[in-house]
Amino acid sequence: MTDSFPVVDFEMRVTWGDSDPAGISYYARTFDWFTNGRMNFFRSYGFPYMETFHDKGIALINLHADCDYKKMVTPGDKIFIRTSLTDFSRTRMTFTYQVLTEDGKLAEEGKTLHAFTDTAGKPFNLSKRFPELWDQMIEKWKMPQE
Amino acid sequence: MTDSFPVVDFEMRVTWGDSDPAGISYYARTFDWFTNGRMNFFRSYGFPYMETFHDKGIALINLHADCDYKKMVTPGDKIFIRTSLTDFSRTRMTFTYQVLTEDGKLAEEGKTLHAFTDTAGKPFNLSKRFPELWDQMIEKWKMPQE
Amino acid sequence: MTDSFPVVDFEMRVTWGDSDPAGISYYARTFDWFTNGRMNFFRSYGFPYMETFHDKGIALINLHADCDYKKMVTPGDKIFIRTSLTDFSRTRMTFTYQVLTEDGKLAEEGKTLHAFTDTAGKPFNLSKRFPELWDQMIEKWKMPQE
Amino acid sequence: MTDSFPVVDFEMRVTWGDSDPAGISYYARTFDWFTNGRMNFFRSYGFPYMETFHDKGIALINLHADCDYKKMVTPGDKIFIRTSLTDFSRTRMTFTYQVLTEDGKLAEEGKTLHAFTDTAGKPFNLSKRFPELWDQMIEKWKMPQE
Repeated sequence: MTDSFPVVDFEMRVTWGDSDPAGISYYARTFDWFTNGRMNFFRSYGFPYMETFHDKGIALINLHADCDYKKMVTPGDKIFIRTSLTDFSRTRMTFTYQVLTEDGKLAEEGKTLHAFTDTAGKPFNLSKRFPELWDQMIEKWKMPQE
Repeated sequence: MTDSFPVVDFEMRVTWGDSDPAGISYYARTFDWFTNGRMNFFRSYGFPYMETFHDKGIALINLHADCDYKKMVTPGDKIFIRTSLTDFSRTRMTFTYQVLTEDGKLAEEGKTLHAFTDTAGKPFNLSKRFPELWDQMIEKWKMPQE
Repeated sequence: MTDSFPVVDFEMRVTWGDSDPAGISYYARTFDWFTNGRMNFFRSYGFPYMETFHDKGIALINLHADCDYKKMVTPGDKIFIRTSLTDFSRTRMTFTYQVLTEDGKLAEEGKTLHAFTDTAGKPFNLSKRFPELWDQMIEKWKMPQE
Repeated sequence: MTDSFPVVDFEMRVTWGDSDPAGISYYARTFDWFTNGRMNFFRSYGFPYMETFHDKGIALINLHADCDYKKMVTPGDKIFIRTSLTDFSRTRMTFTYQVLTEDGKLAEEGKTLHAFTDTAGKPFNLSKRFPELWDQMIEKWKMPQE
């Protein structure tokens, strides 16, 4: 589904602390993995989050998050967080995530929607406030031209 | 929206550990709050989770979770997790959550969908495997008769 | 041991998300509870953390933390975090914590040591940089006069 | 200090979710990193935790944990968790951890002490209950013969 979008894989292991008394990964931790995948996505494309956004007073506030759980994973399992940038505009970014097991099975799938805001949480238009960063981003990811 | 469903409020404070470098509650932690709301819901109706489910080998595996973020909350804020049981059947339960600020504003809203499974993650029909518990649950929450 | 020190109890329940595949509370979460106890301590004495410290650019950086685990607690258990301010000076604060079960048994015990720093992590003397706050604190907690 | 002990390095990055409103890693998360280092230590020596311990009903309950914080780390920083097994006996294991920055500076240092228990939390002598596993462990790590 995400062949035409920018996509980056992040390898990790399910940790003991990620897991609950049912012996499987705790559902809320999957959203931490999504964050890790997203941060790795930015870094892979040359936009490390802290330097690119946080230190300039840009926040990517979450507007929405969802996840479908398809297969249980347990502590020690090697997994891959496949992060795709499936939509972005002057005010928002949408990321889609697939958690894959070592043998390529889909364990979880979800997405997060973010708005660009200042540190007070006020949304802004990135292309107006940070035109240079905006140009670098569309150069890398192309999407908005389409 | 949830007037006709069983609903329980849980009061808590946003913690420092729930919050991220943007100075607001970290989005993944909202799903921990949903769990706290759900556990409190069960306890309020006389079904403490560990004794009622976990200790009998019943798991309420997550199939889906989502959340919409509407208003930022920060460490120390008093909030209420309003948990409603909006659907349940012999195999599944759906909970809806509203995170409300002290002055009653809606900060976050979401839901989780769960299946009854054994400890190996195999789904089962609660009314067949645990008929007495099933009867107690429909007695309390009525929904399935409708 | 803490009779002569300022002390505040905080009531909470062990959560599902605090617990690990061994079915008991995960050891690292105890340090989250300590934070919750400490934040509640400050709030109880009229020094809410965000307004009193964070918003003025004061950080209470952790220098040390330790915990001894004496008794297992499980999801749903009601516990009390008893937080004492056992030492404080112009540059540092030490808190001691006891996690007590509902019937008063000691489950865990630990402490944290903090330094006052600016947002860049540079330590400072609170009585020089924020003399009014310092006076309010020794007024409440007396310790430094001894 | 740990030259003569078995030691394994684990590379990771500080995550956004590990960090707090002060913009630095949240102190309680360091204990999650210690767990990750310990699990990686076991795996590196051919004793994956779940298969070796958990699935056989062996728990390594925490008796003590401590950490000294020496240098702030922030989201995105590459760090190494250096885990050493500094003591072990028929009933207990002690691990020592150093969190090192990418340029080799010591950021944090701590230790955890564990007892072998059954799933009910009752301590036992590993060499009596699981003699084969015990022999494999002293074969790898030598310590007890000294």
